[in-house]
Amino acid sequence: ERDKYENNDVAGVVTGLAWTRVGGDILFIESALSKGKGNLTITGNLGKVMKESATIAMEYIKSNADELQIDPDVFEKYNVHIHVPEGATPKDGPSAGITMLTSLVSLFTQRKVKKSIAMTGEITLRGKVLPVGGIKEKILAAKRARIKEILLCEENKRDIEEIKDDYLKGLKFHYVKDMHEVLQLALTKEKVKNAKKL
Amino acid sequence: ERDKYENNDVAGVVTGLAWTRVGGDILFIESALSKGKGNLTITGNLGKVMKESATIAMEYIKSNADELQIDPDVFEKYNVHIHVPEGATPKDGPSAGITMLTSLVSLFTQRKVKKSIAMTGEITLRGKVLPVGGIKEKILAAKRARIKEILLCEENKRDIEEIKDDYLKGLKFHYVKDMHEVLQLALTKEKVKNAKKL
Amino acid sequence: ERDKYENNDVAGVVTGLAWTRVGGDILFIESALSKGKGNLTITGNLGKVMKESATIAMEYIKSNADELQIDPDVFEKYNVHIHVPEGATPKDGPSAGITMLTSLVSLFTQRKVKKSIAMTGEITLRGKVLPVGGIKEKILAAKRARIKEILLCEENKRDIEEIKDDYLKGLKFHYVKDMHEVLQLALTKEKVKNAKKL
Amino acid sequence: ERDKYENNDVAGVVTGLAWTRVGGDILFIESALSKGKGNLTITGNLGKVMKESATIAMEYIKSNADELQIDPDVFEKYNVHIHVPEGATPKDGPSAGITMLTSLVSLFTQRKVKKSIAMTGEITLRGKVLPVGGIKEKILAAKRARIKEILLCEENKRDIEEIKDDYLKGLKFHYVKDMHEVLQLALTKEKVKNAKKL
Amino acid sequence: ERDKYENNDVAGVVTGLAWTRVGGDILFIESALSKGKGNLTITGNLGKVMKESATIAMEYIKSNADELQIDPDVFEKYNVHIHVPEGATPKDGPSAGITMLTSLVSLFTQRKVKKSIAMTGEITLRGKVLPVGGIKEKILAAKRARIKEILLCEENKRDIEEIKDDYLKGLKFHYVKDMHEVLQLALTKEKVKNAKKL
Amino acid sequence: ERDKYENNDVAGVVTGLAWTRVGGDILFIESALSKGKGNLTITGNLGKVMKESATIAMEYIKSNADELQIDPDVFEKYNVHIHVPEGATPKDGPSAGITMLTSLVSLFTQRKVKKSIAMTGEITLRGKVLPVGGIKEKILAAKRARIKEILLCEENKRDIEEIKDDYLKGLKFHYVKDMHEVLQLALTKEKVKNAKKL
Ligand SMILES: [Ca+2]
Ligand SMILES: [Ca+2]
Ligand SMILES: [Ca+2]
Ligand SMILES: [Ca+2]
Ligand SMILES: [Ca+2]
Ligand SMILES: [Ca+2]
Ligand SMILES: [Ca+2]
Ligand SMILES: [Ca+2]
Ligand SMILES: [Ca+2]
Ligand SMILES: [Ca+2]
Ligand SMILES: [Ca+2]
Ligand SMILES: [Ca+2]
Repeated sequence: ERDKYENNDVAGVVTGLAWTRVGGDILFIESALSKGKGNLTITGNLGKVMKESATIAMEYIKSNADELQIDPDVFEKYNVHIHVPEGATPKDGPSAGITMLTSLVSLFTQRKVKKSIAMTGEITLRGKVLPVGGIKEKILAAKRARIKEILLCEENKRDIEEIKDDYLKGLKFHYVKDMHEVLQLALTKEKVKNAKKL
Repeated sequence: ERDKYENNDVAGVVTGLAWTRVGGDILFIESALSKGKGNLTITGNLGKVMKESATIAMEYIKSNADELQIDPDVFEKYNVHIHVPEGATPKDGPSAGITMLTSLVSLFTQRKVKKSIAMTGEITLRGKVLPVGGIKEKILAAKRARIKEILLCEENKRDIEEIKDDYLKGLKFHYVKDMHEVLQLALTKEKVKNAKKL
Repeated sequence: ERDKYENNDVAGVVTGLAWTRVGGDILFIESALSKGKGNLTITGNLGKVMKESATIAMEYIKSNADELQIDPDVFEKYNVHIHVPEGATPKDGPSAGITMLTSLVSLFTQRKVKKSIAMTGEITLRGKVLPVGGIKEKILAAKRARIKEILLCEENKRDIEEIKDDYLKGLKFHYVKDMHEVLQLALTKEKVKNAKKL
Repeated sequence: ERDKYENNDVAGVVTGLAWTRVGGDILFIESALSKGKGNLTITGNLGKVMKESATIAMEYIKSNADELQIDPDVFEKYNVHIHVPEGATPKDGPSAGITMLTSLVSLFTQRKVKKSIAMTGEITLRGKVLPVGGIKEKILAAKRARIKEILLCEENKRDIEEIKDDYLKGLKFHYVKDMHEVLQLALTKEKVKNAKKL
Repeated sequence: ERDKYENNDVAGVVTGLAWTRVGGDILFIESALSKGKGNLTITGNLGKVMKESATIAMEYIKSNADELQIDPDVFEKYNVHIHVPEGATPKDGPSAGITMLTSLVSLFTQRKVKKSIAMTGEITLRGKVLPVGGIKEKILAAKRARIKEILLCEENKRDIEEIKDDYLKGLKFHYVKDMHEVLQLALTKEKVKNAKKL
Repeated sequence: ERDKYENNDVAGVVTGLAWTRVGGDILFIESALSKGKGNLTITGNLGKVMKESATIAMEYIKSNADELQIDPDVFEKYNVHIHVPEGATPKDGPSAGITMLTSLVSLFTQRKVKKSIAMTGEITLRGKVLPVGGIKEKILAAKRARIKEILLCEENKRDIEEIKDDYLKGLKFHYVKDMHEVLQLALTKEKVKNAKKL
């Protein structure tokens, strides 16, 4: 049985789209902060490339802390843990990049993620968003999971155009080129309830 | 020969339900504190995913120390060791997550675990409990081991409903969605005898 | 040719019982202290599970230092090395647990081990002793090696009862449930000659 | 579908030429700085030899900081991250050496990379540039990607001379022997917009 | 072609006996000190068990520094490197134990090794010497290499007694039980020329 | 196409002789210093034994700093990087030992390497030079590469004597027993141009 979209109550929880052996599915990226010395821990039965996505997202944020309005001191005073449920399923590939980035920025700013949105796309260190595969299967899974809006790389637009209109009903698409657009579209300006003071 | 429920005398010892090649069994999660610098050691012939469960449980607790009423200083002043007997049996998978979480919270608060209770369920970093497999075999093992109450993810309720009533006699089920419910149901307010002062 | 029991002159040397491809044998657990910062080194061509036993024994001792009457300062001021001769033979499994525990407590307290005793049993972090396999072969090896007393888990009693009485002549058995009993039976109150002052 | 040359707006982004199982392609080397203690992180699904290229480039720069007019303090006060999109493609080999070197010098000096240039060549610790393979395929990919100038090792000149003139139209070649020439040809004296003050 | 005994001019160089696929041979254990923080480095294409022998020798020395008349401060102020030429040949097994021990004690005391002596035997942490295999082949190699005296474990005496007397002419055997005897027989009281002051 | 001898302008660059699957070749050992804390980095697609050679060379130099007239402070204030081009070729074996040693001593003393010299030989921690294989192929490669003088272990003299005189014309051989001779023959007393002040 497939997962359903849940809510946007918690900082750092963002919905991604995954392409598995049994078709598309949604997945959740979760992240958490605890007092520490700047360590990054990654769990969820992830392969090398997916772990690298987390490292790239973290480094992009550190390198662009000023414009993201994040006090760089938090990178040294807290440990960050990124987890991708469900542990029994091995996961790999670069397509959770923008989801991880959004999760971490939500975590560091304690800003709420937009409601009913999901996303898929590779990130680069310079802030570009790259296209990913399995778009059709991911879109079908998003609908089943009651997602309303989807964030994709502009270069994945052609993949959407090849899908029958019926399948796309009720979904709104946003095509992005870089991480600024991702964050502007995915994060609200509102803080989560009981936002942590970092 | 299968294991039996023992007692709830020691902080950090919690009974889990496992699904092995030879059917269901109960297992014990043990944890211990010693003076140190915040290291986490995990033993018991565990695979990668089961070790990740321990890391997630630990991080969840650190990240929610306030509401769990745990002084965050203990995370830096003590080392934590989690062990799952019996070393000759390789163990893996995410289903000991809630058992590990309960073990660690019992350890850090020195609160007694509820008597004759066992549990199985995956945990996530945001505090959600996820369903796990092998429910029927685990329930049979729990009965044999003289367990009285069982904690499961709400989404595993359907698995229980498919089991013949005869097999369920004498067992009380609690279905949970998140870690707060787990801890409220699994931990008493009483401290263990000779509770450590942390 | 098989090993023989030697003596109890040196702190930290304890006789265990092993089950190898060529039958039972005795083995020696040796441990040594040197000035350091609390590192634990384990040698002797050991597999993962047997190394974990050493870690569990060490952690149990740290966690119960008070009642074992060990000044916790020694854990930070000394390095501990555990070695299991003979390097050419790969060794694994949890059954040296109580032997390692006894070795380390003898080392930290400089108390003499009881004369002509051997033991086999898995340890847990909470101090319970678990049953192990290969009992018949181990008992035969113990006799050949001129052992007089044997420490076993209570749950291994049935294995002894299945052995012909003739084979058991001259051996005295002690069945234990937890580590307190192990230490009470295996360690004398006498210090070794030239005991180190820790 | 193959990649296209993009622009030279960002410090540390340099265009390389790669030889893959499906023919030539361009690739981007990205690098970023963040406050830190001199760690080097390398991502992009890279093999051992390609990671070594990054280490060699970094070490060459440290060892020749004076003539490169880089304040050696930055090596201790910042972490460097080098990434090579696209994560789904494993990459290896020494031919990205001069591209990585150019990327890092651009990063440390915040100087703009020359417009529409791409490069391929192995680097050595003493600053020599070595020839690499797959030149024909790389040149074809460069043209498709709208590259105008190409930097190669002098010893690769013979490979260019074996390519039909038609294929080379619109491309300008620079043949180099050492890293000084690479940097002189590849980097402008202009700083990037919003150059970081290191 | 096989190796020859060389000399005893350098502290830390000791001759061992090895058993290889092509018969017996002698080997040299070399060790060196340099200013440092107590690290132990081991080279020479050695397997896990042979590396463990070096660790055991080092730990035995640290643990018995007093009676070996070694100032324990040297263990923290120097790094130790143990090397076994020849790098092209993989080497493993526990039989270089007493050779490594002798090498390290010679190094730390700067005492000269006895002339024309070679040795083979496993060491234990408590200071016992254990028998090893391949004795006949090792003895033949020792003769060819112009060794005059050989140190063996007492339990290897029977192996010598099975060798024809002709083969043993010109060789003097010393049988030992523990490391004290090894050191007494293998090390002279004389310091090496240009002895380091530690 | 094979490599050619280059020059002796740069400290730390020394020419070695290698034996590869496709015959003999020359190779360059490069080394570089940068401000640091005494780390040793080794690149060039090297196997375990060849990396060990670098470690042994480094340790020999540290251990004999006085007679090599190197201020031991440099070992703590600088990082050393050893690189062996060309990254696409895996390399292993002990025969680059004397080349690595010469490279490092040239680096630490900033002395010029002798012109047109190449070398091959294993090193030991006590300073002895050992013979290596593939001599004939290496000599042929040296001639092709315009080498004039060759440094070899004395025990490799017999290999040279088996080569036809015609092949040896124009080559001068130096046979050595220990590292002192290597350094005396391979290094000039002149400093390189722009020598670093360490
Ligand atoms: Ca799912
Ligand atoms: Ca601040
Ligand atoms: Ca069991
Ligand atoms: Ca506090
Ligand atoms: Ca034995
Ligand atoms: Ca004290
Ligand atoms: Ca591409
Ligand atoms: Ca400065
Ligand atoms: Ca030899
Ligand atoms: Ca002293
Ligand atoms: Ca070459
Ligand atoms: Ca000085």
